[in-house]
Amino acid sequence: MAAHFPFSAIVAQDDMKLAMLIAAIDPAVGGVLVFGDRGSGKSTAVRGLSDLLPPMLVNAGCLYNCDPATPALFCSDCSARSLQGPLKTKKVPVPVVDLPLGATEDRVVGALDLERALAHGIKAFEPGLLARAHRGFLYIDEVNLLEDHIVDLLLDVAASGENIVEREGLSVRHAARLVLVGTGNPEEGELRPQLLDRFGLSVEVKTPTELPLRIEVVRRRDSFERDPAGFKAQWSREDARLRERLVEARSRLPDVTVPDAALERAATLCIKLGTDGLRGELTLMRAARALASFEGAAHVDDGHLRRLAPSALRHRLRRNPLDDSGSTARVERAVAEVFAA
Amino acid sequence: MAAHFPFSAIVAQDDMKLAMLIAAIDPAVGGVLVFGDRGSGKSTAVRGLSDLLPPMLVNAGCLYNCDPATPALFCSDCSARSLQGPLKTKKVPVPVVDLPLGATEDRVVGALDLERALAHGIKAFEPGLLARAHRGFLYIDEVNLLEDHIVDLLLDVAASGENIVEREGLSVRHAARLVLVGTGNPEEGELRPQLLDRFGLSVEVKTPTELPLRIEVVRRRDSFERDPAGFKAQWSREDARLRERLVEARSRLPDVTVPDAALERAATLCIKLGTDGLRGELTLMRAARALASFEGAAHVDDGHLRRLAPSALRHRLRRNPLDDSGSTARVERAVAEVFAA
Amino acid sequence: MAAHFPFSAIVAQDDMKLAMLIAAIDPAVGGVLVFGDRGSGKSTAVRGLSDLLPPMLVNAGCLYNCDPATPALFCSDCSARSLQGPLKTKKVPVPVVDLPLGATEDRVVGALDLERALAHGIKAFEPGLLARAHRGFLYIDEVNLLEDHIVDLLLDVAASGENIVEREGLSVRHAARLVLVGTGNPEEGELRPQLLDRFGLSVEVKTPTELPLRIEVVRRRDSFERDPAGFKAQWSREDARLRERLVEARSRLPDVTVPDAALERAATLCIKLGTDGLRGELTLMRAARALASFEGAAHVDDGHLRRLAPSALRHRLRRNPLDDSGSTARVERAVAEVFAA
Amino acid sequence: MAAHFPFSAIVAQDDMKLAMLIAAIDPAVGGVLVFGDRGSGKSTAVRGLSDLLPPMLVNAGCLYNCDPATPALFCSDCSARSLQGPLKTKKVPVPVVDLPLGATEDRVVGALDLERALAHGIKAFEPGLLARAHRGFLYIDEVNLLEDHIVDLLLDVAASGENIVEREGLSVRHAARLVLVGTGNPEEGELRPQLLDRFGLSVEVKTPTELPLRIEVVRRRDSFERDPAGFKAQWSREDARLRERLVEARSRLPDVTVPDAALERAATLCIKLGTDGLRGELTLMRAARALASFEGAAHVDDGHLRRLAPSALRHRLRRNPLDDSGSTARVERAVAEVFAA
Amino acid sequence: MAAHFPFSAIVAQDDMKLAMLIAAIDPAVGGVLVFGDRGSGKSTAVRGLSDLLPPMLVNAGCLYNCDPATPALFCSDCSARSLQGPLKTKKVPVPVVDLPLGATEDRVVGALDLERALAHGIKAFEPGLLARAHRGFLYIDEVNLLEDHIVDLLLDVAASGENIVEREGLSVRHAARLVLVGTGNPEEGELRPQLLDRFGLSVEVKTPTELPLRIEVVRRRDSFERDPAGFKAQWSREDARLRERLVEARSRLPDVTVPDAALERAATLCIKLGTDGLRGELTLMRAARALASFEGAAHVDDGHLRRLAPSALRHRLRRNPLDDSGSTARVERAVAEVFAA
Amino acid sequence: MAAHFPFSAIVAQDDMKLAMLIAAIDPAVGGVLVFGDRGSGKSTAVRGLSDLLPPMLVNAGCLYNCDPATPALFCSDCSARSLQGPLKTKKVPVPVVDLPLGATEDRVVGALDLERALAHGIKAFEPGLLARAHRGFLYIDEVNLLEDHIVDLLLDVAASGENIVEREGLSVRHAARLVLVGTGNPEEGELRPQLLDRFGLSVEVKTPTELPLRIEVVRRRDSFERDPAGFKAQWSREDARLRERLVEARSRLPDVTVPDAALERAATLCIKLGTDGLRGELTLMRAARALASFEGAAHVDDGHLRRLAPSALRHRLRRNPLDDSGSTARVERAVAEVFAA
Repeated sequence: MAAHFPFSAIVAQDDMKLAMLIAAIDPAVGGVLVFGDRGSGKSTAVRGLSDLLPPMLVNAGCLYNCDPATPALFCSDCSARSLQGPLKTKKVPVPVVDLPLGATEDRVVGALDLERALAHGIKAFEPGLLARAHRGFLYIDEVNLLEDHIVDLLLDVAASGENIVEREGLSVRHAARLVLVGTGNPEEGELRPQLLDRFGLSVEVKTPTELPLRIEVVRRRDSFERDPAGFKAQWSREDARLRERLVEARSRLPDVTVPDAALERAATLCIKLGTDGLRGELTLMRAARALASFEGAAHVDDGHLRRLAPSALRHRLRRNPLDDSGSTARVERAVAEVFAA
Repeated sequence: MAAHFPFSAIVAQDDMKLAMLIAAIDPAVGGVLVFGDRGSGKSTAVRGLSDLLPPMLVNAGCLYNCDPATPALFCSDCSARSLQGPLKTKKVPVPVVDLPLGATEDRVVGALDLERALAHGIKAFEPGLLARAHRGFLYIDEVNLLEDHIVDLLLDVAASGENIVEREGLSVRHAARLVLVGTGNPEEGELRPQLLDRFGLSVEVKTPTELPLRIEVVRRRDSFERDPAGFKAQWSREDARLRERLVEARSRLPDVTVPDAALERAATLCIKLGTDGLRGELTLMRAARALASFEGAAHVDDGHLRRLAPSALRHRLRRNPLDDSGSTARVERAVAEVFAA
Repeated sequence: MAAHFPFSAIVAQDDMKLAMLIAAIDPAVGGVLVFGDRGSGKSTAVRGLSDLLPPMLVNAGCLYNCDPATPALFCSDCSARSLQGPLKTKKVPVPVVDLPLGATEDRVVGALDLERALAHGIKAFEPGLLARAHRGFLYIDEVNLLEDHIVDLLLDVAASGENIVEREGLSVRHAARLVLVGTGNPEEGELRPQLLDRFGLSVEVKTPTELPLRIEVVRRRDSFERDPAGFKAQWSREDARLRERLVEARSRLPDVTVPDAALERAATLCIKLGTDGLRGELTLMRAARALASFEGAAHVDDGHLRRLAPSALRHRLRRNPLDDSGSTARVERAVAEVFAA
Repeated sequence: MAAHFPFSAIVAQDDMKLAMLIAAIDPAVGGVLVFGDRGSGKSTAVRGLSDLLPPMLVNAGCLYNCDPATPALFCSDCSARSLQGPLKTKKVPVPVVDLPLGATEDRVVGALDLERALAHGIKAFEPGLLARAHRGFLYIDEVNLLEDHIVDLLLDVAASGENIVEREGLSVRHAARLVLVGTGNPEEGELRPQLLDRFGLSVEVKTPTELPLRIEVVRRRDSFERDPAGFKAQWSREDARLRERLVEARSRLPDVTVPDAALERAATLCIKLGTDGLRGELTLMRAARALASFEGAAHVDDGHLRRLAPSALRHRLRRNPLDDSGSTARVERAVAEVFAA
Repeated sequence: MAAHFPFSAIVAQDDMKLAMLIAAIDPAVGGVLVFGDRGSGKSTAVRGLSDLLPPMLVNAGCLYNCDPATPALFCSDCSARSLQGPLKTKKVPVPVVDLPLGATEDRVVGALDLERALAHGIKAFEPGLLARAHRGFLYIDEVNLLEDHIVDLLLDVAASGENIVEREGLSVRHAARLVLVGTGNPEEGELRPQLLDRFGLSVEVKTPTELPLRIEVVRRRDSFERDPAGFKAQWSREDARLRERLVEARSRLPDVTVPDAALERAATLCIKLGTDGLRGELTLMRAARALASFEGAAHVDDGHLRRLAPSALRHRLRRNPLDDSGSTARVERAVAEVFAA
Repeated sequence: MAAHFPFSAIVAQDDMKLAMLIAAIDPAVGGVLVFGDRGSGKSTAVRGLSDLLPPMLVNAGCLYNCDPATPALFCSDCSARSLQGPLKTKKVPVPVVDLPLGATEDRVVGALDLERALAHGIKAFEPGLLARAHRGFLYIDEVNLLEDHIVDLLLDVAASGENIVEREGLSVRHAARLVLVGTGNPEEGELRPQLLDRFGLSVEVKTPTELPLRIEVVRRRDSFERDPAGFKAQWSREDARLRERLVEARSRLPDVTVPDAALERAATLCIKLGTDGLRGELTLMRAARALASFEGAAHVDDGHLRRLAPSALRHRLRRNPLDDSGSTARVERAVAEVFAA
């Protein structure tokens, strides 16, 4: 309905913009968690990013955004219909689905369609927000205020790419490959370490402190609000250039290689930082590969790893009682030591 | 039903009256939060203000107060009907909707119309208070006693101008541009800083301490209660004059400019005060523009900024443990320093 | 069903009886809060008072006690029926409605008539206790044990004279002008200052400590219980005399004036006592006017104000940590100083 | 179903037996609260007492035990039927109704008859335990474990003799004159002073400590359990004698007088003990009158008052921090002083 | 379904086995409470015991296990059917009903048969677990984890032999004579003294500490699991011998007498131990009588009392702050003193 | 749907793999509890293991996975159908059922089929997750976050091999032999000792700390994700070899004997460690027998016992305040002492 602020017109906030681009190039990276004050443009960025992405092809009439290119992942409905001949397709914008505060588990995973159950005695499944976000973004404002079991459930689905519903006599599973973008305010309620670990990348956004930047933000926002169409037109070339790079990065991704040296660097860094499990190095490897692809490189090198190490690792550190420097500083120090070697 | 006390007859309380006028001129300012004791005439002021506003044109039969002038924002019903020819319109008073204590989320955002669902098996949406308040005011007494998730929801809608409902198999969105007027009693339950920050302006009202003022308040209130019609007649000219200024200020608003110097002043002031995010300077800029318009000025100047800085910024300060002067004093001190420069 | 103990036969408890009479003469005074031990005859007094009042004229068949004399306040049903010719009327006793412990909000404000909804698919409103108490008394035993949101709701309705219901797709408003009589036991749960402030008058009742008084109470109560009819007959003349004074006081009320000097006294007293808001002086002025009318005076004088100041103000004082005398003593001291002036 | 242990065969426990007899003679005394260990025969006593009472005459087919002798108190059903000619009557045993642990408010006061509502769309009232206990006993084991609002409700009904139900669109009232017998274990949860005060009499029961008494209790109980019929036959003469005295005491009661001197004694005693309110002396007067009647006396004398003062007053004392003797001792000391005078 | 481990094959645990046999001989003893670690064979013992008991005769088609031998206790259904001629009977195993963790009160006591209510508009009662356990055993694992109100209810029914249901417009009573066997883990949640007191006997089970016993337990259990049928056959003679003794003990029970000297011993012991109420001596007397019968004695003697005193009394002691020896030791010491006399 | 990572390709984690294999060979061992950080491949292992097992034969159309080979355990439906001739069978993969976070008790044990109840008035049972997991695995992630009553229920079923449902008028029992695999994070919520004791084996998994191992894990996981089919092909021979050993171990199991010396060793070890109950030695005996079978041995020897003692016993130790070495260390020390003897 409302027009979105152009992604390219966002002032500063480079970390956040890069993390979102990486997640858009390789959703397997596992979502982005954005920390920072309200009013620093997080929601604006996700919506701008989705506008940037080329529309996607879906089976017409499908409630699950089924991709005509992967029949193996068709929902039961598309599978059934595909037996009777080729399915019609159509192009739709990449979805950005908001998880409203207070959304129930039913609404998230889907539930029995009560209307049809009551009126027609048919036990039909009514898809939830996860179905609608398939192949797009699920935006969760203040993920720290959500109940843990909802967060757990979202992370399970995001990790497995599948939504499994076992309730009220329903037994449904459908593909749900989506990029989680969560925002959190570190001052209100913390996330359990287990949840933190399951987000791919994390970034921190801050209100800019330089006067000219602040004035520029206010000026652009006011211009946009007073004349959205004119403002978008002004930034359309910038946006188009970025879209092109994104599309190329996606198609090039399977060909980008990760040399053994890079794998070793990533593992050494994680051992040094004492991150639990292996999600740290897996994510860092994937994110670096996506960055390499975005920059047109054939393989991952130290530069890619270094630039993404903070985003990939900072939220996986154990609290160190003897070291009260922030997580970012600790990652950067370890990076300096490991890559100097 | 009952007649309202005339806005012009309200004794003293200039800050509150100005803030409400500003919000009525440019709803994008973002609502008014009024702190103070019960019984200081907050509810009276909102109702008086709405009586002041000229009636608004709506599509006849529409449950969402759709504005015939903006077909792009029509509800789905008006959109459908408008395809079959021009819609009938009618004039209605600007709504002031009360959020009763204990109102459920269903009642606020709207919900499945159970009656129609049960009786006719139709899944129809029954609009809530947000729909009824569209293009008017939503008055929330003791916003600090509301559950956080309701407040959050109200602020989300007020900010986006849209109400999105995702529940029970419903997926509805409709325009909901409204001015929130919340009242709070600082002695009972505080508002989270996040919520405070999202109100545009804040004012404090106090029981007057001068004897003549108090007697005047009691006298006017008693006169009004004993003969509402006579009392309103007595104040009708004052009210009419104010209405005229309000209407002019609204129509002039798009032409009022904000010079770069003013933007810089606003940003400098916010940096000095250390307000989080950029809502502080955005609101101050908008409120000052509305004030300039109200006073017939062509552009915002220092005077406008200075007068509105306390209302726009005082509720956005972080508690400063080294400075126990009140928020208002801190804003005023910063104003003095910045504008002296 | 059961006969009530005659109001005139109540032994001692003069403060309570006066406050109730005042509230019956001018309901705008805002209800009476009675503090004291159980078993001190609070409920007896309200019921006796209602027996004292002359029956009231209502539209026959109306569920809201609509008053034929004020068509502007008719419920939607009476309004509709009145278009088809004059309505039949009948006389009914002034209602005293008990708010039973544990009454639900539904039962208080009214709710969807489930039976008709289920059986006939009609969304009808079933009026609650507030509708039944319209133009009479609502008696709330142990108001301090009620949930705050119910108390809030009752006070809102009592103050506005209207009951507004916004739930389950219902949107009903009807007149509900009623005198709240609440009782509280200071030993169990306190009332929030906000709630206290909204009651018009407060009185304290105590078990009499003089032997003859106590014996007289027990003797009258035993006589009444052993032969209710005989006992009532014995006191009917006393009751009749009081009824007459009450009726006259009501009809005379609009002509009683409040001189400026009296307004000033009331305001000075409130400033001295530091009561929040202006409800203190408004209530004192109204109560004094009702008392003047009850005593046949043409205007309010110092004597009226002095006698009612404790009842009107004692529950509006802030706790003063430096002054541990009781509220009543503090009011009396201030009265002495102000009226000596 | 099961036969009850004969009242006369209860070993010792004279206080409890007397209090129950008093309550059976004049239900206006207000119920009996029995404190003491489980297993001390409280339930046995109530059931034995009800067997002692002569069967009562009721309107045949009435769900509320309506008494043919008091048409003014007929339920709406009996009232309606009585218009069509004299009602049939029948004799039924005096009911002893158990309030099972966990009984809901619905079950206690009655509720909408869901079956009829669902099946026939009729909003009928289904009487609760209070209706069934009308004119008999309501036995509440471990009254201290009940939720306060249920206890409150029971005491309200017992005091007023009426059950008023205002819920779910029902508005029912019916007579409910009943003797509450509550038991409490002082070690688990205390009763609020307000609740204590509303019970008429209180007694304490203890396991006897004398060997022969204990053996006698065990022997009688074992005899009864092994041959209930034989045992009852053995005690039938004792029971018959007691029944006769009870019936006579009831019919003689209205003629027993309470001299002024007795009233004064009772009041003096209560003032000395500092009991709140006047329920203390009212109950003591009534209980003494019932005792006088039971013993064939024409008027209440000091002896009657002295014997019942502990039962009538001990649960109405305020805790005295300077006097740690038990309540019974405090009452007895005061009795000694007052009656010595 | 699954075969049970033979009662006779249980290694050691003599106290527990004896207590269960006693309860099976005279259910009036009042249930057995078994304390001890999980995995010590409590459930195995109950099931083995029920296999030991001879099948019982019931009215065919009865849902309440009605006993053809006691028409006075027939359920209303059997009563009705018996008027139309002799009822058919059949033999069924003695029931052992498990109270599953989380069983609702509805399921325990029975409830409205919702299906029939909804489908046919008939208010029928659906018997609960208490009905199914009539004349058998109700096994409650971890009785200390049950909600108090369920335990209370079970103990009430076990004590009265009747289940009375007063809910949802149902008013049902049926015989429910059953032996409660509860298990508790003293480390998790204690039982209230009131509940403890209502269990007839208590025993403690412990994992054996002697190596050969432990090996024997493991060996027998493994043999049983690998070949249940073979193992049962191996122990069938032992089981048959025990069954015979049990049946004889039951039929002989009414003829066993309790001499006055035994009653005195029991009472003296309880006085010495300071047990509340008289359940201690009643239970001890009954249990000793059952033991005498089991051993073929004509009357109870000191030996019977001594052996069962710990089981009958140890859970009825008050905590003695000056004596920290365990309950068993305290009972045994008192036994030694009393019986030495 | 998604392909599983091959069991053989799991790097390191030998304890966990062995425990799972043991549980697959003899489900009577009683489930496996895996402690350790998220992301250490627990879920991957279970799924890989189930892929390893040969498909199982079931009655076609049966909802309970009934095994054609054991008609005695047929569900009521299969029992009924089998009377009308031989049942059709089919092969299905061994189920691995996930217990999703927040699964209700209804969903776990099965419940009334509401749809059929509402639509057809038939009270049918809808099997739950326990039915679906029959003869396979039930995987419970973060068992420590489940509510205790659900865990209890799962352990009861796993121990008895039967699911008994007593609710809403349903009375269903069906076979449910399944291997529980639970995972726990020791940092979040502990399991009660009672629950711990009921799991057969426990293992701890840790993120490997050696660089080459970590790189190998990341490399294999990345290869698998980029080309699941190719990767599985690469490991198919390893998996086939393991499957063969598993099948043989299962068929050989009944013939493996446990010499008395081994039983004694196990019991001595448990006495030394002070484990409660006898589940410790029973489990150790069974697990050792399964291991012997897996390794082709004819009887259990010391080596088998030693290797499994930590997994079988470590979670059954009481906390020893004088010994703060970990549980594993304590078991190993005891093993050393006992087996040295």
